[in-house]
Amino acid sequence: MRRLFRLLKIDHIGIATTSIEEGLAVWRDALGLQVDSTEEVAEQGVKVCMLAVGDTHVELLEPLGPETSVGKFLAKRGPGMHHIAVEVTDIEASLTELKNKGARLIDETPRMGAGGCLVAFVHPSSFNGVLLELVQH
Amino acid sequence: MRRLFRLLKIDHIGIATTSIEEGLAVWRDALGLQVDSTEEVAEQGVKVCMLAVGDTHVELLEPLGPETSVGKFLAKRGPGMHHIAVEVTDIEASLTELKNKGARLIDETPRMGAGGCLVAFVHPSSFNGVLLELVQH
Repeated sequence: MRRLFRLLKIDHIGIATTSIEEGLAVWRDALGLQVDSTEEVAEQGVKVCMLAVGDTHVELLEPLGPETSVGKFLAKRGPGMHHIAVEVTDIEASLTELKNKGARLIDETPRMGAGGCLVAFVHPSSFNGVLLELVQH
Repeated sequence: MRRLFRLLKIDHIGIATTSIEEGLAVWRDALGLQVDSTEEVAEQGVKVCMLAVGDTHVELLEPLGPETSVGKFLAKRGPGMHHIAVEVTDIEASLTELKNKGARLIDETPRMGAGGCLVAFVHPSSFNGVLLELVQH
């Protein structure tokens, strides 16, 4: 079957953290990564800090409150790896193809994410236990 | 303080999976990644399958038995993200510096990993909840 999209690279690895400062102590201070940007994404209930590494990023995610998605994740599992984001050529086509292949979509259509990208999430239950974010710049 | 090492890139993202085949259904068949190599690393109790993506890799980890480290991880948390591996310039210097900064090392000295690299793990309790693998090629 012809593939409708290409995966270009790992866009970022999302890490849930109690506070951005706690995350920076590790990723910036201990490992020497540079901060690219920090912003609040109110729609997703998080403060986001991006650190550059190679051709990808580490994304620190601090919840804006306990009832947010990341807040609930922290309460259940504690800080740690939260999701993997992949950059794709065509997010609409990716969602169509993944759905046709049986993936359970959290977002049936793309929405606005950090940095003004289009993003959509795929549920870990259909994806080898990994919360996958599709990103189109 | 002068830094004793540089972090070059994300070497790979480790994903614990019940079987390599289950992982390939997602990462190769649904997302279109290419398999680079498959090998058994008996010392770590895993079968390892590397898939290339951008300048990094997805590493599928299938346990060789329930008493292995990945086997226990699967029993406790199910399949999903297991660790992040970073390539460093000097793994010995990295371990010294991270230890001096208070990191809890799983490996005080490097050991042989997949593909003949030197590797060492840092405990998630001292690292923002992330199991970190240092890699020197």
